[in-house]
Amino acid sequence: MDILELRPVAEELFSKVRELSHDGVGVTRASYGEGESATASFLRDFALKHGLEVSADRAANLLFRLPDTCGEGQAVWCGSHLDSVPQGGNYDGLAGVIAGLFCLLAQKQSGTASRIPLQVIGFRGEESAWFGKAYMGSGALFGLLDADDLALEQRDSGESLASCMHNAGAEIEAISRQEALFDPLRVRAFLELHIEQGPVMVARKLPLAVVSGIRGNVRHNSIQCLGAAGHSGAVPRWLRRDAMFAVADLIMRLDEHWSVLLERGTDLVVTTGMVSTNTAEHAVSRIPSQVRFSFEVRSKSIDTLEAFYQLMRAECTAISRERQVRFEFDRRLLSKPATMDGQLCDLLSKVCTRQGTTFEVIASGAGHDASLFANAGIPSGMLFIRNQNGSHNPEEAMEMDDFMLGVQVLHETIRELS
Amino acid sequence: MDILELRPVAEELFSKVRELSHDGVGVTRASYGEGESATASFLRDFALKHGLEVSADRAANLLFRLPDTCGEGQAVWCGSHLDSVPQGGNYDGLAGVIAGLFCLLAQKQSGTASRIPLQVIGFRGEESAWFGKAYMGSGALFGLLDADDLALEQRDSGESLASCMHNAGAEIEAISRQEALFDPLRVRAFLELHIEQGPVMVARKLPLAVVSGIRGNVRHNSIQCLGAAGHSGAVPRWLRRDAMFAVADLIMRLDEHWSVLLERGTDLVVTTGMVSTNTAEHAVSRIPSQVRFSFEVRSKSIDTLEAFYQLMRAECTAISRERQVRFEFDRRLLSKPATMDGQLCDLLSKVCTRQGTTFEVIASGAGHDASLFANAGIPSGMLFIRNQNGSHNPEEAMEMDDFMLGVQVLHETIRELS
Repeated sequence: MDILELRPVAEELFSKVRELSHDGVGVTRASYGEGESATASFLRDFALKHGLEVSADRAANLLFRLPDTCGEGQAVWCGSHLDSVPQGGNYDGLAGVIAGLFCLLAQKQSGTASRIPLQVIGFRGEESAWFGKAYMGSGALFGLLDADDLALEQRDSGESLASCMHNAGAEIEAISRQEALFDPLRVRAFLELHIEQGPVMVARKLPLAVVSGIRGNVRHNSIQCLGAAGHSGAVPRWLRRDAMFAVADLIMRLDEHWSVLLERGTDLVVTTGMVSTNTAEHAVSRIPSQVRFSFEVRSKSIDTLEAFYQLMRAECTAISRERQVRFEFDRRLLSKPATMDGQLCDLLSKVCTRQGTTFEVIASGAGHDASLFANAGIPSGMLFIRNQNGSHNPEEAMEMDDFMLGVQVLHETIRELS
Repeated sequence: MDILELRPVAEELFSKVRELSHDGVGVTRASYGEGESATASFLRDFALKHGLEVSADRAANLLFRLPDTCGEGQAVWCGSHLDSVPQGGNYDGLAGVIAGLFCLLAQKQSGTASRIPLQVIGFRGEESAWFGKAYMGSGALFGLLDADDLALEQRDSGESLASCMHNAGAEIEAISRQEALFDPLRVRAFLELHIEQGPVMVARKLPLAVVSGIRGNVRHNSIQCLGAAGHSGAVPRWLRRDAMFAVADLIMRLDEHWSVLLERGTDLVVTTGMVSTNTAEHAVSRIPSQVRFSFEVRSKSIDTLEAFYQLMRAECTAISRERQVRFEFDRRLLSKPATMDGQLCDLLSKVCTRQGTTFEVIASGAGHDASLFANAGIPSGMLFIRNQNGSHNPEEAMEMDDFMLGVQVLHETIRELS
């Protein structure tokens, strides 16, 4: 069979999953929450109906295989994540899981399994929006979740990550002992198809891209700036300790450094995604004494990450002195940058070329589960699908033609691996 | 009797009102809400017990008199407000109402009423924290509340100001017709005692100050900055439309203008008391597309207010262009600056001097109900009491000695008015 014939099935699957996780604005598939579980359950039923084997791994991620494959030897892993940000888009993560499923379906329907058996994985808990930490599902597999991570609280319910993972079926005791829950030596390669989540491929008219590496990041989910409250009319400028002006000052200093570093060719993005005066006490006529904000810097270079982080801390110190405020930092979180495997990049490129698809090799600005596999020494490769309107927002879009081109490349690549 | 003998009564009254409006952190006496009504009710009982007449005016403000006074002729009005900001201090407003009450008590207990009868008023709804507008109780008396004002929503419940005032007993039909609810010609003078709410008198070691004028302000309760959401890792700097960076940019530009204008001797304070990314969609890894913030500028000069407001709008226009965002403004609110009556200032100063109290004549940074009386042509005067730790915060404090000095000056001043 030609895998492109699955296109109507793709349309139906994406549409049904969108429906079941629609929140009125975008899709909401909370990590270890309702939308994610509903998506997992829907895909499980679909796969079983088509004769695939479905199970869950010890971290409650979803696994798909051809019946009676993946015994004692090596397997090719392929997949992406099931969850989304709040009010997010439908293709971020889901596209990679469905692409993997289609590779299995194509093998099944043509009766020719790949030389190395394929295991498709639908990760839970990739998005950091829910617990302030990314790669929870894949991280658990590698024994990377520590006690602090497991104590993180769900942004709405306040329930701990440990409890949420446990309820989803994960072996929380093994995870909290930081055991590796699988044998990395049995993974021949990890492949992930994902939407780009950025505007570069649209601008360059590239339906597909081979990913050379993945930006890492350093984050604080919640930094607090503390000043002194006061009547907005009665405290002159020199006596103010305005936490909001201090945070605005910090953001503008970071913006200036960012701009200068970009001119020097440094790979860098800086974001303060969540900023708020204290809603319990803020008022139009009150000098704000408390501002909470998140900080995130991303780069392909670990050195850039560390240097910019130190710069941020130095500016906080300077602003503390100048504006008579202080900054309190929660735990620093680091996701290391990752390099994709050269041979896999070459193979993906070769298949793209053979297929006649325009593509380029580009770096990923966003983080992906694949980075954990790459940093664990497992040969990893990623294929980007062009997508419209960015991501992490309800307007995120993807052309089905582009997706099917990607599925085809993934399918061929898996078949050629030995 | 010597009015200073009322000191233990003052301590008891302040302590009891603090208790009944304590919120666990500070005091909360919401405009037309629970804490304000409980305070009014407590003071009503106290006054009745001491043989005073108590009533409500047509705007639901609380009135106190000696029995059978304030007939057809002129009266001296004296008072301040009953409400507080959320988690505020105990003396802001309340001190002026209790001071007025003590003047009545002293007249009552000594059996010598002032030449011009005294009417003490406890205003409701002075604080802008609750509906985004100040002077609602006094404004209603002057017929200054328009349909937009009456439609303003309570910050927590969303109930309209009209409905809240109606429930408190105000004649909402007359108010919505913008009728004046009293005859200004029958007010000989308006006097208000109030804590300073700023650090100047503490720094200058002044227990009392005579107020020369009151800063006005221009406000927007809610300006919205709209950019475009996006994945924080995948959108390069030049394609970003980050609403938070745009608002930080605006705040820093205003801060720079402010700093320059201060060096030129301009009277000015600038505050963004409420700032927040959209909590329904914000995330650490999402470029914020929506930020709401409040804007307030205060000055003794109406020209400075207007000029700085235009400067703010011009900077918004510039930032819109540079950062590809747009700003949406809610209704602009103006409170005009006010000048206190020269003769009343002289009289207050004379009494301070005679009493041997150190004092100065200073301007008020904060707004007060007295500004409405002054701007309506009613001779108005204000006396400031030194207070510690600023105001609009739970740490706000006041020495009882300073307060009683102020009560004494107020009492003498009222007796000398003719």
